[in-house]
Parts: sequence; structure tokens; C-alpha cells
Amino acid sequence: MGVRVHNGVMKLRIALTMGDPAGVGPELCVKVCSHPEVAALCDVVVVGNARVLSAAAVLAGVPVPSRILESAVVREDFPRGRVDAECGRAAYDALMSAIGMCQSGEADAVVTAPLNKAALHAAGVPEPGHTEILARATGSPRHALMLYSEKLACVFVTCHQSLASVPGNLSVSRVTEVVELAHAALKKLRGCAPRLALLALNPHAGEEGLFGDEERLHLIPAVRIARARGFNLSDPLPPDTAFVPEALTRYDAHVCMYHDQGAIPFKALAFDEGVNVTLGLPIVRTSVDHGTAFDIAWKPGSPARADSLLAAIRLAVRLSASPSASLSQ
Amino acid sequence: MGVRVHNGVMKLRIALTMGDPAGVGPELCVKVCSHPEVAALCDVVVVGNARVLSAAAVLAGVPVPSRILESAVVREDFPRGRVDAECGRAAYDALMSAIGMCQSGEADAVVTAPLNKAALHAAGVPEPGHTEILARATGSPRHALMLYSEKLACVFVTCHQSLASVPGNLSVSRVTEVVELAHAALKKLRGCAPRLALLALNPHAGEEGLFGDEERLHLIPAVRIARARGFNLSDPLPPDTAFVPEALTRYDAHVCMYHDQGAIPFKALAFDEGVNVTLGLPIVRTSVDHGTAFDIAWKPGSPARADSLLAAIRLAVRLSASPSASLSQ
Repeated sequence: MGVRVHNGVMKLRIALTMGDPAGVGPELCVKVCSHPEVAALCDVVVVGNARVLSAAAVLAGVPVPSRILESAVVREDFPRGRVDAECGRAAYDALMSAIGMCQSGEADAVVTAPLNKAALHAAGVPEPGHTEILARATGSPRHALMLYSEKLACVFVTCHQSLASVPGNLSVSRVTEVVELAHAALKKLRGCAPRLALLALNPHAGEEGLFGDEERLHLIPAVRIARARGFNLSDPLPPDTAFVPEALTRYDAHVCMYHDQGAIPFKALAFDEGVNVTLGLPIVRTSVDHGTAFDIAWKPGSPARADSLLAAIRLAVRLSASPSASLSQ
Repeated sequence: MGVRVHNGVMKLRIALTMGDPAGVGPELCVKVCSHPEVAALCDVVVVGNARVLSAAAVLAGVPVPSRILESAVVREDFPRGRVDAECGRAAYDALMSAIGMCQSGEADAVVTAPLNKAALHAAGVPEPGHTEILARATGSPRHALMLYSEKLACVFVTCHQSLASVPGNLSVSRVTEVVELAHAALKKLRGCAPRLALLALNPHAGEEGLFGDEERLHLIPAVRIARARGFNLSDPLPPDTAFVPEALTRYDAHVCMYHDQGAIPFKALAFDEGVNVTLGLPIVRTSVDHGTAFDIAWKPGSPARADSLLAAIRLAVRLSASPSASLSQ
């Protein structure tokens, strides 16, 4: 726990990345830093580029953040609202600096503004997104993405990959691993053993084997193993009824087989409140659950709202302040 | 249009199938027939088995429906709440009788209570569900399922099949066909050209080709064709943001690539109000959007609610009463 005394108050230190300069990230960072709740809750260092952040502050009509770590090169006439390799590289460099701050003890958690996956790819970064970069940089092969809100939480067995590649990426060991990661994270947040829903891969949970056999091959054995380890895990549920109002009250988290299985209902039900959390890392990392929003980025009178980034900072503080800050157990 | 005069009022005639006797279908049928709105709206013939329906009426504490067409053999001690081949056969026979009533002009629409897919399979029926049986019996190879509510409508390119088999079942011609069917149905219901959302197959709409190429191969060409034909169709949308509140106001229907892509948000947002409609048939057919609910079927004080069946009857009446009753155009 890396708290420090500031004006007589114990404050956690958050390394907040600027995200892709061409997107809404810089604007959200300056907006959230000017929010009174954030100042009361933690010390934020914005990791990115001071010139970009100053321009965003002018656009948003808020002060320039008081603490900025210069970590990314961005040319003066960087493009607004479109894919650019240099901007992808800047987002990557800021993320790597923020991870380093946590690893060296200068920060207690990383909170990330959105990057653009195509820009990252154009910059030659081999990983498709934040989660995979964090996993590699911290040497964490066992990791999973969680979308979290007070209404529902989804943890993903597979994530940023084509739908066609999902069935071949399921296995008993991967499903069991993600159940363990979900259990550990929700136990930390709820303070007691969580009730976990396991979603089937196929419609109607395979309808007794008529629509696919992944439930029989991978999920039912994983349920047996997880229950033997004491986890409170459902049978493989028909996905389409797993998010009805009654089901949401019955579970603390949903273990989802693929990105849209969880992300569709999550964003439909908790759009403005969602936080993206990487489980399985030795550091705490949360993020907004939306993209760079190139369509509205850098527009005067921009409607970009910092709610999700504020929620990400709140959750990072909760996770960092708990007895064991790591989510790898 | 098969209206007829009854007590001086033009009334449409609905053939209502009992569904699987072991499930909640019989109970829902007797409940909905005793609803005053139904009596005012249409003439209902329940197609199934009089003894089963009488037992359901006793259980539910409502009258036995006044018009029953005996069409299915069910033994006296038929099992309640579990898969049974004879019950699967009875559900099938009732459906075939109801289809025949529409084809002969004795009824204006078919409304179906739930059947059980495993029981249907056990009975040796080769089709996996209602939709496919209706398509075969009416000689309608171009058909699609729609989930409809006042909040949102989803029309499916693929449906009752394993997730692994979905990518291989997409094609430009199938996507274009489903867009046409969705356009025709929503135009009938809305009275003007509908705004259609086309969902991508892959997360983030494939993220510029990084997560799958089905968008480029099948969806983008289909959009071009559909727009050339005058349809108001979106680009392939990232699925996870296609059902946020703002997106729901922007579209009249969502064209979905696979069952759970549409069924998950549909049931999360419109659980009790959903109606299942088969598009592309020469007859009008609507249905409940839930299953046989074996866990609560035939229980004294059963909580089974007839809301979805009532909504299905209302929609069947709307579709049958419109200038052209068929949904195949």
C-alpha cells in the first residue's frame, strides 16, 4: 500500500494516462482532474504530453492539471479525430511510463484513458490493446478483463479477437483460471465470497448438445473443478436469459466466453457507469470502458463526458486501498 | 384478410397452439383466453388437447377455453416439467394443424406457445424449432426470426445453431435477404421506411480488420446492395454500443448476425414484453419469446405469466389486420 500523507490526509497516488492524443482522452483527463471529488480522493499524475493536455484544457475550459509527467512525443500539428501512428506510439509510451511508476512504487494504481487499437497497430505495437500490453509488461500470463459497475460485472474468458477464433480458444484450464480471477476480484470488492454466473458459449446453453458441444467439453468440467475448490459457480447458463433483471440480483459477476457476450448487455444496462479492470496483474489497473470517440474528439463544445473515467478513478482507489492491492490472487 | 363478422364486430381468427404439454404452454393458453382484452380483440381457437387444457384450467383457476381443436395425442399420465418424446410430438402436431388452418383460410394467424427443442428432437422431428418447421411446411426458404417489442426489434441472419458455425453461414446474399425481410416487417408496423442497424459479427466491428474479416467480406458489400435498393441501413456497427439507450432511439430494428447477439440485449431490456415473429412466411405467425419453463410448469400457484403470449396475440392481430397480411414481401 503506497499511501502518503498530504495535508494531513492519507492519499493514494494514481498514474492517469492521457490515452491517444487524437481522441477524447486528453479532454477527459483534464476534466476529471478538475473534479472536486478527485482532488479529495487521491493525488493524480497525468502521464502524457503537456502541450496536448494544455490544448485540451483550453478546449474544455478547465485548468491545466497541476501534475503532468512528460512521457510521450506528439508533433504540434497532430491530427485530431483520426488514426495516426505517432499518436498510437504516444499512447503506448504513456502507458509504459505509468506501469513503470507503479512498479517503482511512485504510484499505487494505473488508470487509463482510451487508446485506439488501429493507431497502436500502425505504431508497430504487437499487442491489440491495453490489457495485453499490461500483461506482457508485468509478466502476467494469467490475466482477464473485467467490466465493472454497481449493476453488473462481466469477466472475460476471451476478449479482443475475432468471433470465429473464440471456440478454439476455450479450454477447461482457461475457464477455471478466469473463474478464479473473478472470484478473487469480487471477493475484494464485496467483502465476501461472490456468486458467479458461468455463461454458456452456445445459444440455449447448447440445447442439450444440439447446438455445439463446448459446454460438455470445457464448461461442465470447469464447473466441477471450480466447485471442488469451493467457488460458488452456476451451471453453464443460457446466455440470453442471464442478464434479465432477476438474474442480475442473483449473481455478483458473470463469467463470459467472448467480448460481445458480456459487453453488449453491460453497455446496454450500465453505459455511463462502466469501468474496465485488468485482473491478474501485480498492479491495480482500471480504465474507461469506451473508445477514443474520434467523432466527437477535439470539437468545440464537445459532449465527451468524464463519468466513466471518474468511476475508474474511484474504483482504482477502492482496489488500491484494500488490504492486498494486487488482483492476481 | 380473413376477418369475419361476430356479434356485429369484424374479428380476426387466431389459431393458438398449446405448445409442449409438459411445459407452461397449456397454462398460458388458458390464462390468455380468459383475458378480457383477448375476447374483445379476436376469436381464438386453442389447438392441442382438450384434456391437457382442462387440467391447466383447473390449475390456473380459469375457465376452459370455449374453442379447442383436438389435434394432439397426449397420454393421461403425461410427464410434467420434463423432456418427453410424446409431448414433443404433440407440440409438433398442434403446430402443423394450426398452419393448416391458416393455409385453408380457417384462421388468419398462428400464435404459438413454447415447445421444447430436445423433446421435438426426441420425437424425431428433424427441424430444431418452430421457425424451421413453419418454413418447411409453408415452402418458405427465405425466412428470418424477429424478436419484437415496442422498445427494440432484432432480426436474425443466423439463429438456432452453434456459435462456431455462425461465421461460415454468413454471406452477402443472406445478409441482404434478412435486411429486406426486416425492412418489409418494420415498414408494415411503423407505417414508414424503417431505419435499420446492421450489427458487425466481430467485436469493435472487427477493429479495422484486426479481429476478423467478415465485415469486409459479407457485410460491407451487403450494405452497398441494400442502399442501392433504397433501404435505410447503417454501416456495420460495433455490437457492444449498438444497444445503448441513445442507439435504441436511432433505429427501428437491429439486424443481428447470431442468436445471442440480439437475444441477450433484447431479453435484458424487454423481457416481459417480447414477441417472436417469423418473417418471410405466407402466413402471419407470432409466438412467446420464452421457453417451456419446466422448472415452474404445472406447479400449484405457478408464477407463469401470460404477458408475452398476450403481446404475441396483440401483434398477430396488428399484422393480420394490415393491408397485406403476409410478411414475405
